[in-house]
Amino acid sequence: MTQDIRGLFVVAQTPFTDAGAVDLESVDSLCDFYFRHGAAGLTVLGVAGEAAKLSMEESIDVVRRYVQRAAGKPVIAGVSNSSVAQLATLADKVMRAGAYGVMIAPPPGLRTEEDVLNYYATVFERIGDVPTVLQDFPFSTGVWMSVPTIARLVEQHPQIRAIKEEDIPSAAKITRLRAALSRHVSILTGNNGVFLMQELGRGIEGPMAGFSYPEMLSGVHRLYSAGKVQEAHDLFNLYLPLLNYENQSQWGVAVRKEGLRRRGAIRSAAMRAPGPKLTAADLQDIDLLVQRLEQSLAEAGA
Amino acid sequence: MTQDIRGLFVVAQTPFTDAGAVDLESVDSLCDFYFRHGAAGLTVLGVAGEAAKLSMEESIDVVRRYVQRAAGKPVIAGVSNSSVAQLATLADKVMRAGAYGVMIAPPPGLRTEEDVLNYYATVFERIGDVPTVLQDFPFSTGVWMSVPTIARLVEQHPQIRAIKEEDIPSAAKITRLRAALSRHVSILTGNNGVFLMQELGRGIEGPMAGFSYPEMLSGVHRLYSAGKVQEAHDLFNLYLPLLNYENQSQWGVAVRKEGLRRRGAIRSAAMRAPGPKLTAADLQDIDLLVQRLEQSLAEAGA
Amino acid sequence: MTQDIRGLFVVAQTPFTDAGAVDLESVDSLCDFYFRHGAAGLTVLGVAGEAAKLSMEESIDVVRRYVQRAAGKPVIAGVSNSSVAQLATLADKVMRAGAYGVMIAPPPGLRTEEDVLNYYATVFERIGDVPTVLQDFPFSTGVWMSVPTIARLVEQHPQIRAIKEEDIPSAAKITRLRAALSRHVSILTGNNGVFLMQELGRGIEGPMAGFSYPEMLSGVHRLYSAGKVQEAHDLFNLYLPLLNYENQSQWGVAVRKEGLRRRGAIRSAAMRAPGPKLTAADLQDIDLLVQRLEQSLAEAGA
Amino acid sequence: MTQDIRGLFVVAQTPFTDAGAVDLESVDSLCDFYFRHGAAGLTVLGVAGEAAKLSMEESIDVVRRYVQRAAGKPVIAGVSNSSVAQLATLADKVMRAGAYGVMIAPPPGLRTEEDVLNYYATVFERIGDVPTVLQDFPFSTGVWMSVPTIARLVEQHPQIRAIKEEDIPSAAKITRLRAALSRHVSILTGNNGVFLMQELGRGIEGPMAGFSYPEMLSGVHRLYSAGKVQEAHDLFNLYLPLLNYENQSQWGVAVRKEGLRRRGAIRSAAMRAPGPKLTAADLQDIDLLVQRLEQSLAEAGA
Repeated sequence: MTQDIRGLFVVAQTPFTDAGAVDLESVDSLCDFYFRHGAAGLTVLGVAGEAAKLSMEESIDVVRRYVQRAAGKPVIAGVSNSSVAQLATLADKVMRAGAYGVMIAPPPGLRTEEDVLNYYATVFERIGDVPTVLQDFPFSTGVWMSVPTIARLVEQHPQIRAIKEEDIPSAAKITRLRAALSRHVSILTGNNGVFLMQELGRGIEGPMAGFSYPEMLSGVHRLYSAGKVQEAHDLFNLYLPLLNYENQSQWGVAVRKEGLRRRGAIRSAAMRAPGPKLTAADLQDIDLLVQRLEQSLAEAGA
Repeated sequence: MTQDIRGLFVVAQTPFTDAGAVDLESVDSLCDFYFRHGAAGLTVLGVAGEAAKLSMEESIDVVRRYVQRAAGKPVIAGVSNSSVAQLATLADKVMRAGAYGVMIAPPPGLRTEEDVLNYYATVFERIGDVPTVLQDFPFSTGVWMSVPTIARLVEQHPQIRAIKEEDIPSAAKITRLRAALSRHVSILTGNNGVFLMQELGRGIEGPMAGFSYPEMLSGVHRLYSAGKVQEAHDLFNLYLPLLNYENQSQWGVAVRKEGLRRRGAIRSAAMRAPGPKLTAADLQDIDLLVQRLEQSLAEAGA
Repeated sequence: MTQDIRGLFVVAQTPFTDAGAVDLESVDSLCDFYFRHGAAGLTVLGVAGEAAKLSMEESIDVVRRYVQRAAGKPVIAGVSNSSVAQLATLADKVMRAGAYGVMIAPPPGLRTEEDVLNYYATVFERIGDVPTVLQDFPFSTGVWMSVPTIARLVEQHPQIRAIKEEDIPSAAKITRLRAALSRHVSILTGNNGVFLMQELGRGIEGPMAGFSYPEMLSGVHRLYSAGKVQEAHDLFNLYLPLLNYENQSQWGVAVRKEGLRRRGAIRSAAMRAPGPKLTAADLQDIDLLVQRLEQSLAEAGA
Repeated sequence: MTQDIRGLFVVAQTPFTDAGAVDLESVDSLCDFYFRHGAAGLTVLGVAGEAAKLSMEESIDVVRRYVQRAAGKPVIAGVSNSSVAQLATLADKVMRAGAYGVMIAPPPGLRTEEDVLNYYATVFERIGDVPTVLQDFPFSTGVWMSVPTIARLVEQHPQIRAIKEEDIPSAAKITRLRAALSRHVSILTGNNGVFLMQELGRGIEGPMAGFSYPEMLSGVHRLYSAGKVQEAHDLFNLYLPLLNYENQSQWGVAVRKEGLRRRGAIRSAAMRAPGPKLTAADLQDIDLLVQRLEQSLAEAGA
């Protein structure tokens, strides 16, 4: 991470076979799909990547495969773990496997913000100089970090090169973070991208999110960066109905994987157990949303 | 509730003055606003109505004022409370004040679903034959009710005339509820309306949500009920960017109140403390979204 | 609160009739009971006092009755509320009713410690110069306050005259608080008193807890203050089996009320719904524990 | 598990070196210590065994070492995991390593009890006929299982041979479970043993808990089983002050490990990060409690 993390970093899915095994061949096709649709980099083994359901060997296999296929493009690996020892081992292994950096969220169970500061001090002492994305996702972790606490973490730990900000409301927090940080770090945003337009307005470097149509996320970022704000909004809004439908926590991941399967990016939409399964009625909802999306795209292109 | 609850039941805001007092005059103007924009009824004292910040006297004053102004149209009053005694007192008072029925969510702290069944048994024994909306909003209450548990509640308690379903994914749960319920009850949906299109597809009776442009919610319901599915989607999508922006928990309520203030429905956008405050940058986000909405409406109308 | 809060402040129960009404006559007998058994003061309307199940009128009635009966001895009133407006109203009314001060825990839903600081700033601006006990009870509120945050609250708000500390482990936090606080405030402890011996070792001013045998809590404090550490432990240990049995969250409150009823302090052991009910087997457990306690006391006295 | 699980099953610690590595030699000495002090069996890789901080290889190494050293005595291995695939792999490996059975708690994130039923159906389909302890520990998992749900699990899955019951109040739930279960399964209890006397009174088969003096847990069970109820209480009460002090969640585990270190059972009291560390003042608390315990034992023995 010698320069800013900038542009679309896709939160990559982990493909499984219908039987629940990691599908490494689909990693290849999915990786190609992401970069073909405008990704600047990938973030693998995130919450939406079902990281908690992988063994350490599987985790490393997935990272290695993504790194190989990415052929030099940056792949950030989530290494959050309730054990610092496990986290450090995983961080070491993914960096050896060629990862560009790691992403670390505070583990559930941390309580006060003093605990948060102590936790990251311990972590960074253990992992050393590994480029790190600090993930602020309190609705998933249950750990709340205020702007002053994040600012102190950034000040104390030069390893932090970027923040993935997905507190709500994200836009207001980004503005406050920019004012409070003692040095520049990239800020990218998640929440499945649903607040991307406002976040771009606050000066983020890009989205770090998953979507079955990543070309929207990259396209919106490109337009916005080129000063074409209204065009960026127009593009975003075309996809918003489907994006919104995917924004339903782990169930939304099932929708996204189905979308990726339909587009040929992966062979199976299966999530590993325990995980949701789509019904026939759910698939019809997707049919309708995709049909309308394609029609809108056709009209917009005309 | 001699007939189904059907159509848009707006989750009504509680207007406050800038100093934090309940603003009963704004109740009048807001009530008019809601019905002028297509409401079939109102649901007051919900989570978005800041019910937990009102004293019992204030609660009753607000219900009474809404009921008077609604002039015969149905006003449902949220009476959820951690004390059954308090709940029963409030239910009695709002029914005497003319409410059409009450809405009851399980209180935070209930644990097993057996506890849920026992809780509602106690409640209905106390309040007697009061028409009730059962609210299933686990992300707010922390209490999870499975489909079989809800079905048993409906079976055991004839007072339950409607369900407000806002679990996620809502659509799948609605389909399962319809199959499991032993008698017909209306199902209305919340989550700020963001999944309304899919919920309508599963046969709900209408939205029970708040939005600064309630004419969208009523309009979508009307179109959908008339079989104009694509037109309903088109209308929904015009407003979705703003609807999505309002869908940010309590902070989103501040956005909604600002929208209502701008449209002249209330005099102050203030929320009672502790509550969020919008910044200048936030207001600019609203400016842009509203500007784009108005342009879209103009284009669509042309 | 012109001087330190010191000694046993009993967390007082709210007595109800079997039908669930507030039993003000039992307030009198219970108040007498507490002071007869060594209380230096009372804390009413706490979590164990079922405060959340009372209306504001009932709350004020209970405080007024306790104050009248206490005849000049200090009565602190819990006024924690999800609404600052409600909190301020209640604080004003209980102070007018003669309360010695109020106790305020952060409301569930506060997230970052910055939110905590802002919350108390708002509260103290509203309530003015009211002597206040800051309650740190994260397992009940879900709000975590680190030592630096508590220290800053104490520094910024002269109203804070005491801290009720019931984080776990309490002893270690007390030691750190003493080192971090910029001025002396009393520290009293809760958790039903089960860690009282270690907390006394860290220099607290006394217990703020409930127990069906408050004479143990006051006796232990008196012995410890007189330098009779081993005797204090001896006394504590005699009662520990029963104390431990009462230390079971809201269910333990039912045990405590049963104990108070048996000792003639209140007329009914009823808790207001939703609340636990003891079974015959539970009552037999109490029988055995009390029988053994009385025997131990007889032997110790011999 | 051809017969009932009965007697003391110690929840075994995982020993670490000061540097944080698994200390397999201390597994040997600790295993000997447990059986020398009356254990009928062990439960390894539980919450107090810091299971979440071990890699899968470490987990299997620890189980294998315990099994080898136990020389035929039963060793149950905790295999709870957020991934069914991981759980199944771990269950397979520990059973091959000679474990007597596995213990499975529902993973955090399960919501309704219907989800719980579906989860265990999936798990048992995957792992097949592996003897299983069902762990009901809602304060740790956040998943609440009512008595009817547990009864249905026991009815549907013959693999369930025992229940570890540590809901609160445990005694009341045990009585209800006994009445509701369609077949006999052993019920053992945790919560660090603090409610053991009442649980024995409800007919449990024994404690499944950790304590630095396991001879108390085994001794109490033996006395109680022999009908010596008062003697069992007497023995329990001698140790209760220290037992109570250890009953402080993860921090209490640090106290327990210090006690085991002092007794020569393990070489280091270190917990793996993130974990608590004892201060000098904490160690003095232990000194005093142990000193008093030894004196009481001497007096009782005289």
